[in-house]
Amino acid sequence: MNAEFRSLAEKYRSALLGDVLPFWQKHSLDTDHGGYFTCLDRCGEVYDSDKFVWLQGRQVWLFAMLYNRLEKNPAWLEVARSGAEFLRRHGRDSSGNWYFSLTAAGDPLVQPYNIFSDCFAAMAMSQYALASGDDEAREIALETFKNILRRKENPKGAYSKVFPGTRPLRSFALPMILSNVALEMEWMLDPALLEETLDASVRDIMGRHYDSARRLLFENVAPDGTHVDSFEGRLISPGHGIEATWFMMDIARRRGDTALAARATEALLAACAFGWDKEYEGLFYYLDADGHPPDQLAWDQKLWWVHAEALVALSLGYALTGEAECLEWFRRVHAYTWQYFPDPPCGEWYGYLNRRGEVLLPLKGGKWKGCFHVPRALFLCMNTFNELADRHA
Amino acid sequence: MNAEFRSLAEKYRSALLGDVLPFWQKHSLDTDHGGYFTCLDRCGEVYDSDKFVWLQGRQVWLFAMLYNRLEKNPAWLEVARSGAEFLRRHGRDSSGNWYFSLTAAGDPLVQPYNIFSDCFAAMAMSQYALASGDDEAREIALETFKNILRRKENPKGAYSKVFPGTRPLRSFALPMILSNVALEMEWMLDPALLEETLDASVRDIMGRHYDSARRLLFENVAPDGTHVDSFEGRLISPGHGIEATWFMMDIARRRGDTALAARATEALLAACAFGWDKEYEGLFYYLDADGHPPDQLAWDQKLWWVHAEALVALSLGYALTGEAECLEWFRRVHAYTWQYFPDPPCGEWYGYLNRRGEVLLPLKGGKWKGCFHVPRALFLCMNTFNELADRHA
Repeated sequence: MNAEFRSLAEKYRSALLGDVLPFWQKHSLDTDHGGYFTCLDRCGEVYDSDKFVWLQGRQVWLFAMLYNRLEKNPAWLEVARSGAEFLRRHGRDSSGNWYFSLTAAGDPLVQPYNIFSDCFAAMAMSQYALASGDDEAREIALETFKNILRRKENPKGAYSKVFPGTRPLRSFALPMILSNVALEMEWMLDPALLEETLDASVRDIMGRHYDSARRLLFENVAPDGTHVDSFEGRLISPGHGIEATWFMMDIARRRGDTALAARATEALLAACAFGWDKEYEGLFYYLDADGHPPDQLAWDQKLWWVHAEALVALSLGYALTGEAECLEWFRRVHAYTWQYFPDPPCGEWYGYLNRRGEVLLPLKGGKWKGCFHVPRALFLCMNTFNELADRHA
Repeated sequence: MNAEFRSLAEKYRSALLGDVLPFWQKHSLDTDHGGYFTCLDRCGEVYDSDKFVWLQGRQVWLFAMLYNRLEKNPAWLEVARSGAEFLRRHGRDSSGNWYFSLTAAGDPLVQPYNIFSDCFAAMAMSQYALASGDDEAREIALETFKNILRRKENPKGAYSKVFPGTRPLRSFALPMILSNVALEMEWMLDPALLEETLDASVRDIMGRHYDSARRLLFENVAPDGTHVDSFEGRLISPGHGIEATWFMMDIARRRGDTALAARATEALLAACAFGWDKEYEGLFYYLDADGHPPDQLAWDQKLWWVHAEALVALSLGYALTGEAECLEWFRRVHAYTWQYFPDPPCGEWYGYLNRRGEVLLPLKGGKWKGCFHVPRALFLCMNTFNELADRHA
């Protein structure tokens, strides 16, 4: 297996450095206003110039993170700087909340209704501050993080359409992302606040949202963790669940918590089995826990990020637990992913395939797909397989 | 053609009376709380009991309208009464705005953020008042209508996420629905208010949203009718455009306005040509006017209501203008629709097909599909073909 691991590490490294990063460096930079264009067609042509704060933050984070962890490449720092400056100038309202989207020039288009804009901005500013030594970026990251914790119990605020009291539901997404954001900000957070945030995330995800009898991670549960028989309460997002398991594994690894690693791996394998399309292969986007029709019309589509997250989680699960099923599942998802998503003539990965694996939208980037899941997965898988190869050498 | 028209009228009549109405009468009635279950699986089993005000209102309207216009069937009035009573008791907040959804028992789940709930409630209460002579229903309808006109310029109110001023856009949906709501309420509206509402709708739709050079109805335009190069500004919903053309034809017929009928028919034929899937047939759900990837992942799906609206518009366009292309297009959409949507073993129509026409969700009703587009289209097509057959007799 040593040769297999080494060759996997090399495959992921060369896709990262030879294909995906150059694609974004070549096509996404807005040299007029700073920041990034993310709506890129098949071969990288810009088809829309609006700027989405999720994706601005994620690309800053990605390039700064690689600068910090892979190579002190000044071109990468410069890419990160462009986005960080754009965000610093245009990203926030007067209360420090992050807008959802902006024009190319930075005028606000959509209000700060979405707390994940803040999460990705905090990650971005933190990694950029670490890379650049920029104190203002560090402060913006910290203020944003504290603001997220303040808004945590009611993240949509006045934009929430839920009538209070009738059917209270806890959503999975924020505690999940917070565990990742906190680890990304570890270098600058007060250690007690970090541990507290991680504890809360593990409690929410593995305690409240993971149903250990059914081995399923539910997107929405009642505050006491029980199920609510409704569209939201039955919703399963296999990719979301899979992504959460590797955030949990990251915490487990950091703490040497083998029980958490085992439990997260169990959840991961169950999510893969539940989410796999037995007819056409690949992982579904959404499912109903009880097999009813989900409310999401895109439920049967095969999305790039779902598969990228599965590659990260399965390789990490194998590295942490040695569970053979992780490696079997990794090989299955790897084969599917590399057959259907990459596009060698133009570079990067397609984002959206239909159930059969045919291209649904011929884009490399859009309102939701930017420079994030693909290069992050390539980087993390490369590291994991290098580590596995070294271990077996 | 006389025999063809007569046989089409008979086909639509027998589907309405022998299949679709009985399906909803048998499966949707909530005998405990009143109102309707709309989440019905392939053979009519309830898989979710939440109640969506759009669909409650639409089913009240449908049964009351048939009672008023087709047959004084007391069972139909009783179905309408059940939903009207449920809505009257549970549908509104203290300011008279209509919630988006309720539990089976009538407790509010989702706030009144969506003005179309009010539109369908107004149509429902008006037709029910006409059928039953119920004065309170009549008053609720009128209050709701006036409330819609008051909220018209800012229909989402505090729930709007758009940052004011950067990129003002006018949406097509509300003026379109208002033209239909106003005609449905004609019997009870002040004639001046009715004409004023219809004038404004025609101005908005055929003046502002219809690009006569490109022959395309745009979902969103700048206040002066110019195009805005953005996801929203490039969005085309062929089904929406098609539906609007028959609302315009309804107004044209009422006013004897042959120019408006001709213009609406031109827009209809162009929408069919633009929206038609040349590879797998059927009408797409969403397209980008400039051929870029639309933001909507379900863009290539074939939806029941899009095809139902096309059948109504094409038959009416033919009846009003005699345009041969309308009849050709009608035959094409008719053939596609009857091949893919109906489900004789269980009844009613599937709602959601993938691009190839395969069933995407095996449901007959859900959060958005209720007892509305299919029976309305069957009823209207039946009438139009009876009229055409009589005319050619």
